[in-house]
Amino acid sequence: MFLGRVIGEVWATRKVDDLRSLRLLVVEALDERREPGAPKVTPVVCADPLGADIGEHVIVAFGKAARVATLGQDGDFAFEAAIVGIVDDFDVPNAPESWRMHDVESLAAARAKRKAGA
Amino acid sequence: MFLGRVIGEVWATRKVDDLRSLRLLVVEALDERREPGAPKVTPVVCADPLGADIGEHVIVAFGKAARVATLGQDGDFAFEAAIVGIVDDFDVPNAPESWRMHDVESLAAARAKRKAGA
Amino acid sequence: MFLGRVIGEVWATRKVDDLRSLRLLVVEALDERREPGAPKVTPVVCADPLGADIGEHVIVAFGKAARVATLGQDGDFAFEAAIVGIVDDFDVPNAPESWRMHDVESLAAARAKRKAGA
Amino acid sequence: MFLGRVIGEVWATRKVDDLRSLRLLVVEALDERREPGAPKVTPVVCADPLGADIGEHVIVAFGKAARVATLGQDGDFAFEAAIVGIVDDFDVPNAPESWRMHDVESLAAARAKRKAGA
Amino acid sequence: MFLGRVIGEVWATRKVDDLRSLRLLVVEALDERREPGAPKVTPVVCADPLGADIGEHVIVAFGKAARVATLGQDGDFAFEAAIVGIVDDFDVPNAPESWRMHDVESLAAARAKRKAGA
Repeated sequence: MFLGRVIGEVWATRKVDDLRSLRLLVVEALDERREPGAPKVTPVVCADPLGADIGEHVIVAFGKAARVATLGQDGDFAFEAAIVGIVDDFDVPNAPESWRMHDVESLAAARAKRKAGA
Repeated sequence: MFLGRVIGEVWATRKVDDLRSLRLLVVEALDERREPGAPKVTPVVCADPLGADIGEHVIVAFGKAARVATLGQDGDFAFEAAIVGIVDDFDVPNAPESWRMHDVESLAAARAKRKAGA
Repeated sequence: MFLGRVIGEVWATRKVDDLRSLRLLVVEALDERREPGAPKVTPVVCADPLGADIGEHVIVAFGKAARVATLGQDGDFAFEAAIVGIVDDFDVPNAPESWRMHDVESLAAARAKRKAGA
Repeated sequence: MFLGRVIGEVWATRKVDDLRSLRLLVVEALDERREPGAPKVTPVVCADPLGADIGEHVIVAFGKAARVATLGQDGDFAFEAAIVGIVDDFDVPNAPESWRMHDVESLAAARAKRKAGA
Repeated sequence: MFLGRVIGEVWATRKVDDLRSLRLLVVEALDERREPGAPKVTPVVCADPLGADIGEHVIVAFGKAARVATLGQDGDFAFEAAIVGIVDDFDVPNAPESWRMHDVESLAAARAKRKAGA
């Protein structure tokens, strides 16, 4: 599991049946350093059984854990990542400042600007 | 699962039986920054049960989820990655511009040039 | 499994049921070099069945191993990372000096400062 | 699964029983950029049920898929990576030139030189 | 599976029961380039059913394969990495020189120095 931040949402009309009822969020991991020069990992697309908002911190799990979190059991389901917790607070004394930023305003502003320009 | 872009296709005559009926696409992940200096991850080879085109954005799943997406069930199948959704749109406010580019034209041009030169 | 150091704790009120009784720690991996320019991996959020303290070195396992370590068996549980051992000592002759630092004082100081400032 | 190139072979006398009958090849992944400064991933050691040669492009699968590809079924087998296809051709329009090089000659020359010098 | 080198050992008194009888080694992966500027991966902690020495090259497997290698079967065991082979030799023509170094002497010297200084 990793600690991440919801950075967006994705929609797909053509998809396998198991994804039809799932809300799919894009989550970036919080890494140990977020300076511009630091390499970035690939954001994860995950099912969201908890109703997280963009900008919120979340815990993401993979594989069987993701299917159990979303559907209450494992089985022949065609996804393998899910939000298992929405974070209230964390105590990581040496964490970079950027971990604290929820970016809700800047995210909302960016979204508004993009829609206005479209 | 990750958000990626179909960048090509691969063919193998000598392969294990389970791959005989599968179309195998090459998908690169969309990461948080795509400047030339950024490290790149390894593209994924995945089964394509949905008929994605080169340049399209897709959601890729691994392991059991990939087998269920492709064959409707898990079982003793010799592959572990598949496209589970073809993306219509995404809302990731701070995403790099490059995420928006489908590159269909440049991909088609590059392919034509390579074939003409061969 | 990897060798890591507990760097913090995380709390979530809204979470899937299986996480309700679990203490969730944030663990960073000890990598081969820890100079400022080195790329950092993403810290892992894991269940802690052993009662580790911040600053302690631990061994972290994933998947089925994590569920067995925490609950004594595998099953339909919605998590996939756990501390399986608290390290007394290690003999890695060429390990960076930073592996030896438990940082308990600096971690405690940072936490105190953050609380005082809040 | 990933697209790779066979770069060598490895032998082990002391090994677990399940590996006794397996040919073990070393495969490097083809990543999106192969300039000298780009970070490199760790080569994979995998079972080879198809008889691939050094320098050939292959598709590698992990976990259950690798066991099924090699033994026709999953079970209590002590390996988790295998070649599932030997690539005839690929169409990745924007692929780096280095993807095309099979390096068979340079690999053979390097091997001959090493043996002569030994 | 990956090709690695045993770089050390780790001990834990407080650990889950399944780890009680296991020797736990620290193994670093051999990557494609080992210059000082290259990013390093995180060493793996793995069970050692074969009795490998520090400095030896080994093949490491994960998940079910690791449990089968160590205990002869998969089951509810709380670990997921193990040495499955001790390498006699490898033929990787373009491998970096550093792959050949077993570093036994330098490792032994470093260990002696550390103990003398303690």
